[in-house]
Amino acid sequence: MSVNSDLQRERAAAGLESEDFARWWAGGDAHLLERRSLEEHFYSDPRLQDAVHPSCLSYKERYEQTVAKATLFLAKLRAWQKAKHPQMSLDVNTLKDFRVLLSGSLGTGIFQQSFPLRLHFSMFMTTLLGQGTEEQQAQWLSRAWHMDGVVGTYAQTELGHGTYIRGLETRADYDPERQEFVLNTPTQSAYKWWPGGLGNTANVAIVLAQLYIQGKHHGLQSFLVRIRDERTHEPLPGIDVGDIGPRLGGNGVNNGFLGLKDVRIPRNQMMMKNAQVLPDGTFVQGRPPLLLYGTMVYVRVITVRDVLFCLLQAATIATRYSIVRRQSPIDADKPEVCVLDHITQQVKILPQIARGVSYRLVADWLWVFYEQVLLQLEANPPAGNSLPELHALSCCLKAVATDEASQGVDLLRKSCGGHGFLSSANFDSIYGMATAAYTYEGEYTVLLLQTARFLVRQYVDSLKRKVLPSSVSYLRDTARLVWGKDLVRNCVRALEYSALEEVRQAWQSQNIHRRSKVTDAMATNLAGRQMTAAAVAHGHAFLTRRALEELKKVQATKGVTEVLQQLVELFVLDTFLRQLGSVLRWNSLTGTQLRFVERRFEELLAALRPNALAIVDGFDFHDRVLGSTLGCHDGRVYERLMEEARRNPLNQEPVNVSFRSHLLPMMQGKL
Amino acid sequence: MSVNSDLQRERAAAGLESEDFARWWAGGDAHLLERRSLEEHFYSDPRLQDAVHPSCLSYKERYEQTVAKATLFLAKLRAWQKAKHPQMSLDVNTLKDFRVLLSGSLGTGIFQQSFPLRLHFSMFMTTLLGQGTEEQQAQWLSRAWHMDGVVGTYAQTELGHGTYIRGLETRADYDPERQEFVLNTPTQSAYKWWPGGLGNTANVAIVLAQLYIQGKHHGLQSFLVRIRDERTHEPLPGIDVGDIGPRLGGNGVNNGFLGLKDVRIPRNQMMMKNAQVLPDGTFVQGRPPLLLYGTMVYVRVITVRDVLFCLLQAATIATRYSIVRRQSPIDADKPEVCVLDHITQQVKILPQIARGVSYRLVADWLWVFYEQVLLQLEANPPAGNSLPELHALSCCLKAVATDEASQGVDLLRKSCGGHGFLSSANFDSIYGMATAAYTYEGEYTVLLLQTARFLVRQYVDSLKRKVLPSSVSYLRDTARLVWGKDLVRNCVRALEYSALEEVRQAWQSQNIHRRSKVTDAMATNLAGRQMTAAAVAHGHAFLTRRALEELKKVQATKGVTEVLQQLVELFVLDTFLRQLGSVLRWNSLTGTQLRFVERRFEELLAALRPNALAIVDGFDFHDRVLGSTLGCHDGRVYERLMEEARRNPLNQEPVNVSFRSHLLPMMQGKL
Repeated sequence: MSVNSDLQRERAAAGLESEDFARWWAGGDAHLLERRSLEEHFYSDPRLQDAVHPSCLSYKERYEQTVAKATLFLAKLRAWQKAKHPQMSLDVNTLKDFRVLLSGSLGTGIFQQSFPLRLHFSMFMTTLLGQGTEEQQAQWLSRAWHMDGVVGTYAQTELGHGTYIRGLETRADYDPERQEFVLNTPTQSAYKWWPGGLGNTANVAIVLAQLYIQGKHHGLQSFLVRIRDERTHEPLPGIDVGDIGPRLGGNGVNNGFLGLKDVRIPRNQMMMKNAQVLPDGTFVQGRPPLLLYGTMVYVRVITVRDVLFCLLQAATIATRYSIVRRQSPIDADKPEVCVLDHITQQVKILPQIARGVSYRLVADWLWVFYEQVLLQLEANPPAGNSLPELHALSCCLKAVATDEASQGVDLLRKSCGGHGFLSSANFDSIYGMATAAYTYEGEYTVLLLQTARFLVRQYVDSLKRKVLPSSVSYLRDTARLVWGKDLVRNCVRALEYSALEEVRQAWQSQNIHRRSKVTDAMATNLAGRQMTAAAVAHGHAFLTRRALEELKKVQATKGVTEVLQQLVELFVLDTFLRQLGSVLRWNSLTGTQLRFVERRFEELLAALRPNALAIVDGFDFHDRVLGSTLGCHDGRVYERLMEEARRNPLNQEPVNVSFRSHLLPMMQGKL
Repeated sequence: MSVNSDLQRERAAAGLESEDFARWWAGGDAHLLERRSLEEHFYSDPRLQDAVHPSCLSYKERYEQTVAKATLFLAKLRAWQKAKHPQMSLDVNTLKDFRVLLSGSLGTGIFQQSFPLRLHFSMFMTTLLGQGTEEQQAQWLSRAWHMDGVVGTYAQTELGHGTYIRGLETRADYDPERQEFVLNTPTQSAYKWWPGGLGNTANVAIVLAQLYIQGKHHGLQSFLVRIRDERTHEPLPGIDVGDIGPRLGGNGVNNGFLGLKDVRIPRNQMMMKNAQVLPDGTFVQGRPPLLLYGTMVYVRVITVRDVLFCLLQAATIATRYSIVRRQSPIDADKPEVCVLDHITQQVKILPQIARGVSYRLVADWLWVFYEQVLLQLEANPPAGNSLPELHALSCCLKAVATDEASQGVDLLRKSCGGHGFLSSANFDSIYGMATAAYTYEGEYTVLLLQTARFLVRQYVDSLKRKVLPSSVSYLRDTARLVWGKDLVRNCVRALEYSALEEVRQAWQSQNIHRRSKVTDAMATNLAGRQMTAAAVAHGHAFLTRRALEELKKVQATKGVTEVLQQLVELFVLDTFLRQLGSVLRWNSLTGTQLRFVERRFEELLAALRPNALAIVDGFDFHDRVLGSTLGCHDGRVYERLMEEARRNPLNQEPVNVSFRSHLLPMMQGKL
C-alpha cells in the first residue's frame, strides 16, 4: 500500500515540519503520544469497526450497530481507565475527563454521527451531581456511573417548545397524600422531543416540568423518572416513548420523544439541591441556581472547540484531495495540475485552515476565561463579576463560530466537486454535526440578540464614561481608523470601528422605534436586523483581535510560529475582506489601501500553499477520525472510493430482486 | 382534520388572492387545472405512496422501493399520455414533454430524491436522437422509447476525470478485421463514475471514449454498449458494474460505476451522425457538433428553473411553519407570537421568496432567449450569432442561481430550528437536489471562470468602442452612479457599475500578472479571485436588471401585480445590501442613501408580511411535492411530526433486540 506520489512529493518539499506542528497542536509531546496510543488501542479493535458503511444501513440497523459498538466501546474505555487510574474517584473532573474521551477525537473516530449513551455522561450525570442532594447522589450516582441498571437522559425540549423554556408545558403535580409527583404532558405539543438516547436506549430520564403544588405554580423543576423497566426494558405504564426519526446528521444519537400520562414518582425524585418540596407540600426555594447558568455557558464554550474541529476535519480532507486530484491544465499544452494549484481552489481552502487555527487560539483563551469566572463565582464573597461578559461572549462566539464553521465545511465539501457529495467522503456527517450546533444549546439568532442586548447596554455605559469589560472596551474608542504601516492592525481596527458603529446603529434603531407608539420590547424586535448585525460585527472584531493577541503567547519552534503568524494574518485579512460591506460603510478607506490588503492576502496564499499539506498533517487526525475516502493520510483516493462502493450491500448480488419483480415486466409491457 | 387556526386566520386576513397568484404562476388557468388533475390522478394512487419514509430504509431497500415506484409510475404515465394524445409521434418535443413530467413537480412529489430511469429519457434518448444516424435510430429509438429490452444511461464522467473531458481515459480501439470497437477503461481512474441508473438498472450505456484507429487518436466519440444481458440482467463479460453508494442527496438515482475490459461492440454502435468510421477504418469527420454544445447550454438553462423550484419549496415550508410555530413573546407579558412576527425571521424568509419569484421572471426570459438562439443556429445561413452570449449567460446564471438558491434553502432550513433538521421536514432532500446542481453540468467556479473570460473579452471590445451584446452593454456605460429618486434603479445601476469595475479589475489583474514572467494562461489563473468576483458581480447586476425589465411585461390582476412589484423590489434591495462590499467599493454612496435603502427594505418586509402565506399558497405546491411534515397546506405540523415518528420501523417494537444483546449485558457488567 504505497502513499500517493503527489502527497509524497508535497511532504518532501514542505518547509514546515508537520511533526513539530502536531506537537504544538496537541499541547506537547506527552499529549500527542497519549492520544496516538489511545487511538491505536481502540481503532485496531475489529469489534469497533463497521462491516458496512452506516450510510448504507436502514435507520433501525444503524441504531443496532451503534448500540453494539457503544456498549463495547464503553466497556473497553472503563477497562483502559481503570488500568491507568486504579484509585480514581468519581467527581466532576473524572466525569469531565471521561466525557472528553467520549466526544473528542476518539469517539468521533468510532461514531461519525455520535451515539446514544453520550447524554448519560453529560447532561444526566451532570444534573445528578449539580442538582441532586447528598442522599439523592448516594442513591443514584454510583449506579449511574457504572450504568448499573441505569441508562439516563435529560428531557427538556418539547415538540412545541424550545428556546423559550418558560413555555414548557409538561407538569408535575404534587400529591401530598401519597407523597408523590404526578407527571403529565397535557397536550401533543408538550411531548418531550429531541433528548439523545431517549428513543430506545435510556431507562431513566431527568424530566423538566412545571411544578404545581395544590394548583400553585413553583416554576420549572427537574424530576427523575424511570421510563423503562430495568429488567425487561418495556416502557412503564403511562409512558409513550420512541425515536423521532432520521435527521440531517447525528443519526447515531437515538433522539426520542416522551409522553407522560399520570406517571407517579416518589417525592425524593425531584432534584432537591436548589429547591425542595417537603412531605406536606411546603415549597422551599434554595439558593439561586448559578450552576445551571454555568452549564449552559460551559456547553457554548466547548461548542466553539467542537465546530473548529469539524472545520479542520473538512479542511484536511479537502487539502489532501486537492493535491491528489488532478484537473485541467493551467497551460493548455501541459498536463493537468493538482487542483490546489488553481488559485481559486487555494482561496476556498487555505482561509478555512486559517480560520480553524485562529479559532483554536481563541477557544483556548475562552476556556481559561471560563475557568477564571468559575473561580470568581466560587469565591466567598464573589471576586469580581465577569459572568455577564462571559455569557455574552459565549453566546456571540458560539453563534458566529458555528455559522462560519458550518459554511466553511460546506464550501470545503463543494471544493471537492462531485466526490465531495458522496457519503463515503464524510462531509455530510461533518456538516451535520457542525450545523446542528448552529441550532442546539442556543439558536443562532437568539444568541446574537442576547449578545446585542449586552452590547447596547455596554455602549450606553460608554456614553456615561463607565469602564467597560475588556472584550468590549473598543466601544469607548471612537477615534476613526488611522491607516498605519501594520496591515493586520489596520484590519482589526477597521473591524472594531465597524462593530462600534453597528452597535450604535442598533441602539439608534431601538430609539427611533421607541419614539413611535410601540413598547420597548417591540422596538427591540423591530431593530432586529441592526441588533444581529451588531453582534456579528462584534464577533468578528473580537475573534480577530483575540487571535492576534493569543498568537503572541505561542511557544513553538520557529517554523511552526512562522506558519501560525501567516495563518492568523490570513484569517484577519480574510475576515476583513468578507466583511467588506460593513468595513467600507463605517471606515474611509482608499482603493489603494484595499489593494494592499488584497495583494497581501494573495501573498499569504502563495506563502502557505507549499506548507498546506504539512499543516493539515500536523492536526494529526487519525484516518478513522476523518472517516473519509478522500482524506486519508496515504492519499489512495480512487482506490478507497472503489473499495467503499464495492462494500455496498446493493453490490453484493449481480442482479437485484427488482429486476424480476418490476424492471423486466415493465420492459415486456406487462405493468 | 381541521386546518391549523393560525393559518386560517392568516389566510382570511391576506390582501392577496392566492388563487389569482396561482393562476399567474402556473401560466394561466388551463395549465393550473391540468397540473392539479394530473397530480390528483397520480398522488391518489396508493402504489405510488411510501409505506415507510425513504430516510428510514437501507440504501438497498430504498433502491428497490424506488424501482418499484418508478416502473409503475412510467407505466401509468404512458397510459395517461396515450389517452390524451393517441396520435403522438416520437420526436424531440414529445420527449421534452415527457421529460418535464418526469422531472417537474409531478415526479418530485413521488421521488423526492429522483429515480434511476430519468437519464434514459434525458441524456440517453437525446443522444440517440442527436447523434445517431437514421439507421441507428431505426434500430434503437422505438425500442428505447418503449423500453423494450432497453434501459439506457449516458456514461461520460470518470472516477478521475470530470470537468476536463479531454482528459477522459476510456478508449475504443477499432479492429477493422472484425469491424468492431474494443472498449477499455485502462486504469482505475478511467472507470466511469456517476451515471444515473448505471449501478443496477440500465442494460445499455452510451459510453464516451477516446477513439483510436490503428493507434491514431480521433477524439472523443460516443458508443452504444450493452452492459447487461437483456433477459437475465447479468453483467456481460468484461463488464464491471455497480452502484457508487449513498450521497448527500438524490439517493434514488442509482448512480453507478463501469469498468470495461476488452468489450467488443459492432462498428454500427458508434454514434455516427457527426463522425464516421468506415469498415476499413477510414475516419470521416462530419459537421461540427453544434447540438452537443446546445445540450450543455440547455441543461444549464433549465437548471436555473430547477433550483428556484427548490428554493420556493423550502420557502413555502418555512413560511407555513413560521406561522404555526409560536415561540417567545415579544412583550414579556403577552403570549408567545408566531415566529414570523419576529423581524429577524422575516429577514430570513421573505427575501428568499422574492429571490425565487425574481429568478422565475429571469428564467422565463432565458428560455425565450435560448429558443431564439436555437432558431438562429438552425437558419441557413445562420441569422446572427448570440451563442457566445447565451453560453456565457447560461454559465453565469446557472452558477449564481444554484449558489444563492442552495444557500437560501439552507438558511430556510435553519429558520425552522430543530425541526428543520429532521428528515421528515424534507429540507435535507431539497438541499441535496439544489446543491448537487452547484457541481453537476458545469462546476460553479469553472462556470464563473468561463463567464469571466467572456466578460473580459467584452470589456476589451468596449475599449475599442465595439457594440456589445445587450446583456453586457452596461460595460460601455462608464458614467458613475448619479443617485436619483428611483431607489430600485439606483440599486441596479450601482450593481452594474460595480460589475463593470470588477471586470476591469479582472482584466487589470491579468495584465499585471502577464507583466511578470508567467504565461497568459498562468496570468489568468493568478487573477482567479478577480475573475470569479467579476462573474458573480455580473450575475447580480444582470439578474436584478432583467427581473425589473420582465416585471413590466407581467399581465396579472392588480393584486398579483402589486405583490410582484414588492417582491422584485425586495429582491433588488436585498441583492444590493448583500453585495454591499462590492457596491461601496466602487460607488460613492452617503450614509443617508444607504439608510434610505435599508428603510425601504424594512418597509417592504412589513408590506409583504401579511401576504406571505397567500404568496406561498399561490405557488400551489401539492403537499406531496413539498414532502414535509412542517409545510403542509393544513399546517398540522405537530400531528404530522408525531405520525411520521411513529411510522419509523424502529418504533414498531417496544424493546429493540440490542437490549438483550448489548445494553443489558453492559448494565450487568458482563461486557
